[in-house]
Amino acid sequence: MTELSPTLTLACDLISRNSTTPEDADCQQLMGERLAAAGFQLEHLNFGEVDNLWARRGEQGPVLCFAGHTDVVPTGPLENWAQPPFQPIVRDGMLLGRGAADMKGSLAAMVVAAERFVSKHPDHRGSIAFLITSDEEGPATEGTVKVVETLVERGEKVDWCIVGEPSSTELVGDVVKNGRRGSLNARLVIKGKQGHVAYPHLARNPIHLAAPALAALAAENWDEGNAFFPPTSFQISNIHSGTGATNVVPGELEALINFRFSTESTVEGLQARVRDLLDQHGLEYELHWTVSGLPFLTEPGALLDGVAAAIKQVTGRDTQPSTSGGTSDGRFIATMGTQVVELGPVNATIHQVNECIKAADLDILTDIYEATLVRLLA
Amino acid sequence: MTELSPTLTLACDLISRNSTTPEDADCQQLMGERLAAAGFQLEHLNFGEVDNLWARRGEQGPVLCFAGHTDVVPTGPLENWAQPPFQPIVRDGMLLGRGAADMKGSLAAMVVAAERFVSKHPDHRGSIAFLITSDEEGPATEGTVKVVETLVERGEKVDWCIVGEPSSTELVGDVVKNGRRGSLNARLVIKGKQGHVAYPHLARNPIHLAAPALAALAAENWDEGNAFFPPTSFQISNIHSGTGATNVVPGELEALINFRFSTESTVEGLQARVRDLLDQHGLEYELHWTVSGLPFLTEPGALLDGVAAAIKQVTGRDTQPSTSGGTSDGRFIATMGTQVVELGPVNATIHQVNECIKAADLDILTDIYEATLVRLLA
Ligand SMILES: [Zn+2]
Ligand SMILES: [Zn+2]
Repeated sequence: MTELSPTLTLACDLISRNSTTPEDADCQQLMGERLAAAGFQLEHLNFGEVDNLWARRGEQGPVLCFAGHTDVVPTGPLENWAQPPFQPIVRDGMLLGRGAADMKGSLAAMVVAAERFVSKHPDHRGSIAFLITSDEEGPATEGTVKVVETLVERGEKVDWCIVGEPSSTELVGDVVKNGRRGSLNARLVIKGKQGHVAYPHLARNPIHLAAPALAALAAENWDEGNAFFPPTSFQISNIHSGTGATNVVPGELEALINFRFSTESTVEGLQARVRDLLDQHGLEYELHWTVSGLPFLTEPGALLDGVAAAIKQVTGRDTQPSTSGGTSDGRFIATMGTQVVELGPVNATIHQVNECIKAADLDILTDIYEATLVRLLA
Repeated sequence: MTELSPTLTLACDLISRNSTTPEDADCQQLMGERLAAAGFQLEHLNFGEVDNLWARRGEQGPVLCFAGHTDVVPTGPLENWAQPPFQPIVRDGMLLGRGAADMKGSLAAMVVAAERFVSKHPDHRGSIAFLITSDEEGPATEGTVKVVETLVERGEKVDWCIVGEPSSTELVGDVVKNGRRGSLNARLVIKGKQGHVAYPHLARNPIHLAAPALAALAAENWDEGNAFFPPTSFQISNIHSGTGATNVVPGELEALINFRFSTESTVEGLQARVRDLLDQHGLEYELHWTVSGLPFLTEPGALLDGVAAAIKQVTGRDTQPSTSGGTSDGRFIATMGTQVVELGPVNATIHQVNECIKAADLDILTDIYEATLVRLLA
């Protein structure tokens, strides 16, 4: 049996801890011990049942922060796994286990890259930091967002941040995320009047009232996007109305709607257009809005250039910046004015049973992270 | 305390039996004893857990049948009743109790009317019959429909039928139902493709696909009705789609639709038009149809004229024939070619807590039933 690399060894140690959200299962303890030995100052910033770790090496700017989460999504049916999900294994060149791709592999690569960098550059310029939470896959209310609040309160600045989310699509480093669309949710309640289907003139059917308005919302062109963002997209994710009885006209209809929006649209603008459209259809309604994340964008600059050059140096690849896909904790960090890039392994199997990545990719990722440190802080 | 009339006494006796669907609670036993004493031949036709009574006096045609049900709908919250629902009381001129209006009051009036008629006309022409079930408020699959099958199998003909459903709106006899619209249900499943809201190009949102088609169905003019029927009406009673998650595009949408249709439309015609409309919108879908009842109509003739004349004679009122409202067991009886009319007390409180009717109305109803017997069979 071949010896595992330091990154794979640490990744397996992290994966073997069942840290299903919001559990950390001492992953941060383990990472903290390694970082402390490399000269980092640790702070355990715990909110509610969520563990967060803030670690920093150096007093000066610029600050390059690695960010990520120790929590993982539930395993799904255990019987569908080829291997118990918290007993990681490297087989046929693949590392298999819950969190292999999202994102304990990245965490291990970050720690090993930092260790190597500081051993070679003990007097590096600026500071290296780690912002690690156990609440990324869950409500995300007691994790990164609270650590960011703490940093802002004490005026601690983060210049650059690499989030370890699995950004790659086919080959490690082929894509980095240099921004994310915003996410805006609403619960829409359309009011009617309950009655009996045999007496429709005494009722107002909210399904009939809603249908043309929902059709118009679904057909609307919200914006054209721009050089960095695809057009804003609108989806109705849930719709419910009816008592279950086939002879009752229901009294109201509820729909959940979501915008993934580019920097060409604003929260207030989208809200106003939804209201206008519903008003045009003469509806009586309630809208309960939730802003899940504002869009952020890291334009070409020191961080994006450094990461791209490191990927090119290690893999020979020209990486592709992208703002597509879901949200990440990067949205909270970007509010500090930080340049944020997401860079991690291939995301093909995340959140699925038999989550896995190519084992060798973690060593490549370690090299990329280390090369980025060299470019920015050596 | 005033003595209760024979009809009210029998009505209270029936109401005091908790015959919530499909229970009969020996109501048919009680009615049968009274009818047997009046010279009726009894048959207890029981199917599954449903009790049915077929009683007939006479061998010849024409046959005038009284039809009804001994079962009642559930009481709802007992604490909301002014009086325990199965302890009937006459107070301030009102008879209060579950089934007072729907339809134990009518059953009592029918029995007393038949008793009086046969005592005065022991050698009446034709036959008097009773078709009583305990499964009208429930699935209605083991009740009247099965008795009708039995009668058809042995070639027993029913010329005229008075169903005791509470047809009156403000004053007893002000409205009789001389038909009912048909009822056609379908479960409509519209297919999409599940995915993530952040990747809408990889999904097909069935809510977005369905909305314009449902709007078109709701706006469609199905027919204009005719002299006897209002236009066919269409209602979507239930709509459901979505996993509950706000970030998942669902894979399909389910809707329950209902037609209440006039004799200007047919089941096949409505089905074809729904399919055409869904096809025009390019939808992939399934339709699962259930015909709950075909429309029936009793045009002016011996029965409707006899009932109207009896109402005029007893109350001085010109009754109003109507085909509006929900379905009743009349739809099954009409399939025998029988002229069917529904005539019963005021329906303002049916299926509600504190169900009640004017006590005196039951004596008026008894007189109307008896006068109808005289007009048709004396
Ligand atoms: Zn993640
Ligand atoms: Zn009834």
